Amino acid sequence: MAALPDFATMRQAFLEGTDTPRNLLEQCLENIQRSEATVKAFAHLDVEGARKAADLSTARYASGKALSPIDGMPVGVKDIIDTIDMPTQMNNDMFSGHQSRSDAACVRAVREGGGVILGKTVTTEFAIGRSGPTVNPHNTGHTPGGSSSGSAAGTAAGMFVAAFGTQTQGSIIRPSSFNGVVGFKPTLGALSTDGVHPLSRSHDHLGVIGQSVQSVWALSRWVGEIAPGQDTNGLGGDAACTLMPVKPVRLAVARTTAFSDLDRQSAQAFDTLLGDLRGLGIAVCEPDGDPYLAELVRRLDRIVEISIRMVAFDMRWPYRSYVDVAPEAMGPRIHELVALGKEVSLDEYRAMRAEREDLRNRVMELSRNYDAVILPSASGPAPEGFEYTGARTFLLYWSFIGFPAFNLPLMKVDGMPFGLQLAGFQGQDHALGQKAAWLEKSLAPDA
Amino acid sequence: MAALPDFATMRQAFLEGTDTPRNLLEQCLENIQRSEATVKAFAHLDVEGARKAADLSTARYASGKALSPIDGMPVGVKDIIDTIDMPTQMNNDMFSGHQSRSDAACVRAVREGGGVILGKTVTTEFAIGRSGPTVNPHNTGHTPGGSSSGSAAGTAAGMFVAAFGTQTQGSIIRPSSFNGVVGFKPTLGALSTDGVHPLSRSHDHLGVIGQSVQSVWALSRWVGEIAPGQDTNGLGGDAACTLMPVKPVRLAVARTTAFSDLDRQSAQAFDTLLGDLRGLGIAVCEPDGDPYLAELVRRLDRIVEISIRMVAFDMRWPYRSYVDVAPEAMGPRIHELVALGKEVSLDEYRAMRAEREDLRNRVMELSRNYDAVILPSASGPAPEGFEYTGARTFLLYWSFIGFPAFNLPLMKVDGMPFGLQLAGFQGQDHALGQKAAWLEKSLAPDA
Repeated sequence: MAALPDFATMRQAFLEGTDTPRNLLEQCLENIQRSEATVKAFAHLDVEGARKAADLSTARYASGKALSPIDGMPVGVKDIIDTIDMPTQMNNDMFSGHQSRSDAACVRAVREGGGVILGKTVTTEFAIGRSGPTVNPHNTGHTPGGSSSGSAAGTAAGMFVAAFGTQTQGSIIRPSSFNGVVGFKPTLGALSTDGVHPLSRSHDHLGVIGQSVQSVWALSRWVGEIAPGQDTNGLGGDAACTLMPVKPVRLAVARTTAFSDLDRQSAQAFDTLLGDLRGLGIAVCEPDGDPYLAELVRRLDRIVEISIRMVAFDMRWPYRSYVDVAPEAMGPRIHELVALGKEVSLDEYRAMRAEREDLRNRVMELSRNYDAVILPSASGPAPEGFEYTGARTFLLYWSFIGFPAFNLPLMKVDGMPFGLQLAGFQGQDHALGQKAAWLEKSLAPDA
Repeated sequence: MAALPDFATMRQAFLEGTDTPRNLLEQCLENIQRSEATVKAFAHLDVEGARKAADLSTARYASGKALSPIDGMPVGVKDIIDTIDMPTQMNNDMFSGHQSRSDAACVRAVREGGGVILGKTVTTEFAIGRSGPTVNPHNTGHTPGGSSSGSAAGTAAGMFVAAFGTQTQGSIIRPSSFNGVVGFKPTLGALSTDGVHPLSRSHDHLGVIGQSVQSVWALSRWVGEIAPGQDTNGLGGDAACTLMPVKPVRLAVARTTAFSDLDRQSAQAFDTLLGDLRGLGIAVCEPDGDPYLAELVRRLDRIVEISIRMVAFDMRWPYRSYVDVAPEAMGPRIHELVALGKEVSLDEYRAMRAEREDLRNRVMELSRNYDAVILPSASGPAPEGFEYTGARTFLLYWSFIGFPAFNLPLMKVDGMPFGLQLAGFQGQDHALGQKAAWLEKSLAPDA
């Protein structure tokens, strides 16, 4: 697989005039030329539009007028996110050829920052149903994971520096793990989801998948500045600055029942990583050494059933309409979830939200003693085949509470990537990013 | 003007089999036939669809299978709210003929409850810009008020029992006041705005305009059950029950600087109403008798400038796209607000939100001593002409804090309607509705 040069290095070269955004784009296009016929990361590709944007960016750097830290960054956009100049097709026939009348807020932010939008990346149907055509570039017989399949596979294949993804249950962290790239799901509501096709207002996160912690942070942080969501506290830090790597002092292992789903090799890889962390002088604490953590882990396990019921309730809109109007166009999973939603009463939904609020408070308490929580990003590397995009359990916990999480591609199992999930605390995205940057620098296989 | 029979009475007749939803619809259609050429309440009318829905409702009542308290209720839908079987045109050329792919959540709720949707009601451009063609049925040379112009004028002309409206700054309470009908803006977020074209995520309320407090409550309460917003505490009370009228004990007059905009006759009408309230044994307290209230009123006045700056910031999405892509299609007010939004930094926006949070807490304190806050719904009756849809100042306070408010058509000035704004406390919509029902019963001109 072809890797792109690091964007931070490239940007320095843009500023110094030794390289240009157009050159970086052409490297992306070469990688696309080489791999796209196999990987199928794109639902729609706009080479001409990207070249035009890259040339404008090149001109801005030449005249010392770069617009933002992401000026000239090649970016992919998950195909449930509106773009005014490309269709948004949701991997569903009802939206075949669908053209929105505006850019999503995050896409608009990219344009205002001078980013170079390459195209729309393949999603599973509405980010929860049938798989798309994308394969895993690490082994083309394996799933890329879902639902942000094209964003993760395309990053791995060097087709763009970063791409927007969304996570309702596991759709950023899981494909990032399977494709060996960085994924970041910020605090729920920190980035605007306006113009992102909804699944669940209580669970939908906008986030970023990309080549490195710094690249992912640069794009996320910029969107947080220009297109903040309803949680306007934002990601923290300065929009103009890269993350200063900060070594974590104490990490808590959220050893939930999901660990029993790990295959032997993946469990071993995770334990080896814990050993490496300890070897670096980081205190890695297990639930059996901390009764508060142990109790919290039990509570986390209780939400596995709850989460999907909340999502199904939220799917009342617009999916009940869709299923009525175009039943044949909707995949079986959509029908199933709409039906499940009918079993959930408003009273049950309110109780689940109360449970979530309580759990949030309990997890926040952990921030007194730990820098972050760690657990695997999936139950193992990408499974063979394409129907099944992988178990969600490890992803559900932080999706449910809406706190920030990174996937860091720090492990390999049988030659396939397998990620560490670094999970943080509400509104403390910047502090979490600093730890992620340190871990990436100190532990990445090619570090 | 032709009034419709009271829906609660009609519904009793439906249940007893002495009248039918189809008959009620035909009365609406007669009123439309008589007045629509002049009033112009509709952007789109679907007589055939309404008759079909009314016949289905009639059949349900006949077989004892009514779906909800709004089964058979003729309803209008403001033309910024998506309907799968009718265009949603926003009173803007860019959306001429625009057809959404699903119903808005509130429209879906009406269909699931067996309501009879008559059509789309005229809005000002995107609910904030240029006026539509609607006139005031009380005097066709006067504005109906905006932005929910058609919903209010159509209710006054007996074209439907109730209609959806939205309020960002004053767009439900003001036209309700000008047209002499009831308006209800529930707690921000209590009703879903999914499928409602956005202006300002921090200010957009979905609400209802209708013939009476009970009719407005029935529709709002049903939507709160089927299509709750992100504030899932809901409106309170039982979805199946009418409001029990409850006499208010103490009311606080929010005598803000906006009172200086009242013309002499309107000020007199308001003072007369205060006298009537006192005559009924209600304690009506002025700021000069309550230092806490006096201080709060000063604080409320400070937000008049803030509110529009928050709205303009929120309009980044999608209006910056619109103005770029179709500048000629956008009215001057849209251009003006997008430009204003560029002056507002994220830091200023955060400070305004903090101010709002503080103000909310202060207003909630008031609920210890008062049942509700009262003030006029506008600076007087509907002005002559159509360009200017009326001052917003009296509406801004409760729009900004997002607390519930009713317009009650309890005054007349020069033969034109003029409303009392009954403003309540966050999440206490049901308690406010009970007071509104009592005041309507005891004070309505024709009570």
